[in-house]
Amino acid sequence: MTPTTAPSPLTDEDLADAWPVLSSEDRVAGFRMLPPDVAEEFFDSLDAAEQATLLLDLSPAEARLWIRVLEPDDAVDVVQAAPEERRADLLASLDESTRKEVSALLAYAEDVAGGLMSPRYARLRPDMRVDEAIRYLRMQALERLETIYYVYVVSADQRLLGVVSFRDLFAAPADKTMREIMSTAVVTAREDTDQEELSRMFAEQGYLAVPVVDGEGRMKGIVTVDDILDVVTEEATEDIQKIGGTAALEAPYLHVGVLGMLRKRAGWLVVLFFGQMITATAMAGFEDEIATAVILAVFLPLIISSGGNSGSQASTLVIRALALDEVRLRDWGRVFRREVLIGFLLGAMLGVLGLLRIVGASALFGGYGEHALLLGLTIGASILGVVLWGATAGAMLPFVLRRLDLDPASASAPFIATLVDVTGIMIYFSIAKMVLTGTIL
Amino acid sequence: MTPTTAPSPLTDEDLADAWPVLSSEDRVAGFRMLPPDVAEEFFDSLDAAEQATLLLDLSPAEARLWIRVLEPDDAVDVVQAAPEERRADLLASLDESTRKEVSALLAYAEDVAGGLMSPRYARLRPDMRVDEAIRYLRMQALERLETIYYVYVVSADQRLLGVVSFRDLFAAPADKTMREIMSTAVVTAREDTDQEELSRMFAEQGYLAVPVVDGEGRMKGIVTVDDILDVVTEEATEDIQKIGGTAALEAPYLHVGVLGMLRKRAGWLVVLFFGQMITATAMAGFEDEIATAVILAVFLPLIISSGGNSGSQASTLVIRALALDEVRLRDWGRVFRREVLIGFLLGAMLGVLGLLRIVGASALFGGYGEHALLLGLTIGASILGVVLWGATAGAMLPFVLRRLDLDPASASAPFIATLVDVTGIMIYFSIAKMVLTGTIL
Repeated sequence: MTPTTAPSPLTDEDLADAWPVLSSEDRVAGFRMLPPDVAEEFFDSLDAAEQATLLLDLSPAEARLWIRVLEPDDAVDVVQAAPEERRADLLASLDESTRKEVSALLAYAEDVAGGLMSPRYARLRPDMRVDEAIRYLRMQALERLETIYYVYVVSADQRLLGVVSFRDLFAAPADKTMREIMSTAVVTAREDTDQEELSRMFAEQGYLAVPVVDGEGRMKGIVTVDDILDVVTEEATEDIQKIGGTAALEAPYLHVGVLGMLRKRAGWLVVLFFGQMITATAMAGFEDEIATAVILAVFLPLIISSGGNSGSQASTLVIRALALDEVRLRDWGRVFRREVLIGFLLGAMLGVLGLLRIVGASALFGGYGEHALLLGLTIGASILGVVLWGATAGAMLPFVLRRLDLDPASASAPFIATLVDVTGIMIYFSIAKMVLTGTIL
Repeated sequence: MTPTTAPSPLTDEDLADAWPVLSSEDRVAGFRMLPPDVAEEFFDSLDAAEQATLLLDLSPAEARLWIRVLEPDDAVDVVQAAPEERRADLLASLDESTRKEVSALLAYAEDVAGGLMSPRYARLRPDMRVDEAIRYLRMQALERLETIYYVYVVSADQRLLGVVSFRDLFAAPADKTMREIMSTAVVTAREDTDQEELSRMFAEQGYLAVPVVDGEGRMKGIVTVDDILDVVTEEATEDIQKIGGTAALEAPYLHVGVLGMLRKRAGWLVVLFFGQMITATAMAGFEDEIATAVILAVFLPLIISSGGNSGSQASTLVIRALALDEVRLRDWGRVFRREVLIGFLLGAMLGVLGLLRIVGASALFGGYGEHALLLGLTIGASILGVVLWGATAGAMLPFVLRRLDLDPASASAPFIATLVDVTGIMIYFSIAKMVLTGTIL
């Protein structure tokens, strides 16, 4: 299985598949066996943490070669992904001007515009003419520009004055100046703009790049859509994992070791377990009722899980709508009214099904004794109550979390289910006591 | 609240918020009140269905103006989103050459490369020189090109020969030909390449555009990264909604009416409800045990929901890993072994907690009678079994669905919870019978 002994030619796909389970020696050996252009593609496909590990395993000369393949904003991610004590080594393998850029970018958090931006953008003065600009950019393109689909017009003190798309630059008459053809309605991000907000800006307007400015309007860099694509994917993955009741993983599923996986999953499971212990306490309060009418216990899982299901629907819909900014904090009242109505209708529907099931079974097979109708009404009403409560609580909890500046996605399906289980037991047995006391209770 | 009577100036944000609840007259009135540049931004921010509705509500002259703002690939989405009988009206408002392009694109499904591509890309002949190419593109940019960051080199019969990035074109000496500077290792998509696969291509390699070719290698169009950003967001939303146990919504949460919402949610709820009815049947089989030892019913919700929680964790992790291609169908064995181990460890941890809870409460408050230890062992062993089963079943079900060509995301948290509830009851009472018969049973 190790590439050094494999008789057939090694492909980048084989290597990618085996990567997580290979020793560092085998990774280096495998990587060196790839043809240069395949190696570059393979290197690009690794995430920042994997690139950092590989670079540190390679010889210093090789590391120098490979880290220089990266754009400064990607090099920053690699340096940040390396262990603290090895970062200096990686920085040392960069050429001097890139090292300066990377060091400046290292000051920003990974998940804000400053941490995502590239300092390599095309900037021009407002009085430059179109033909001069094109000539100048042809020279600059030889050097290092991350993108040239927008050209930014800046003042002498680096204040952003306007933007010209490359297409407009190309289409403009040669003797116009930048000032004449630039658009001044520029959407900008601040250095500390959160990556989620950035991705909404890109998604809504279809930008290819957004300039990042500081508090005084001075241009600092640009964030490009390809970096945002990663952000969007990563944010969705985090939300999905949280909705499933796990802490967000920091690497692909198969790359997280068993211990790491336990750390990510045990936390929530234990919290939920303690939450569920309350169900035992709640149940203990109704032990007499269960002893008198064991039939009540029989329908318990059906009832509480119906509430958990409707709650999980409502919470995931609201979590996603909040993440996409389709719903804002101030919309909570509208969402509340909708979910009360929808929860009531869904609950009524399932409640009738539950009632019919019991009355039907009683009529057909004579089960449930003479009080089948009363039992059916108890079950039906409980389902209605629990589903209504599940939908309402599930829809409101993400708002509460957002209001407290916590992540709405923490209102996970298991969390809602646990919450609804506890209250569901109370609802069920309270209704049972009201309806059935004097008959089967 | 209707814009026509609002005394304060209408902003596009106000309009966007009120949009779903406005009548079509008010929408048109509000839209007409926006300043032209704001109106264009607002129009861009609507989704295709909303654009279609608005265009059909506007006067034919206005509709003609606004539909021409759209690139052909976006115009296609709008036409597809309109009711069948009104599509001809929309097509008629396009200029003739765009109408031809749009009609050609209408033949493709929305979610494949053909349905996402734009026919407006820059194409050049292989023997064109760099300076000629730049001059030619300056002329073309005046016309309509969706993007100019890549230039495609095609033969006389439109076969794709190579690609030149705009940056390389700019940096190349004026007298080189396209053939000399083009890259021939072009990653292409087929017209029927699925949008999920396309987004993985973009995510892995950071492309800005990918050319779409037919079976004979003839160039048909390009898919650009900004369209892929929408695809990635949309696919994640669908997966999140399915994981929550809802059918995917086709519009933002607040734009789906109550009836539409019921349709999306009732289906799964009813299926799950019938699934949960099996729990009642399973429980009925253990009525004697419950009657003898009511205490068993008390711990039932705790036990089955622990399984549901670990199952929901495993299934969401695997669903997302499959969606991102981090895990493939053939990896099922590896995932199975991991989840058995992780499920065992998590189950053992929670099982010990459950055991301690009962033994502890017994020691402190004298609850649970003389057989507290046996009861604790029953609860602990059941939790272990149920959590292990939850993790394993939750991780395997998405593979089974993918194998059957169904969407792995249908292995929703509520679905797994229901599946695990039924089996959890069997596991719990079977262990209870084994351990407790002769003591409290």
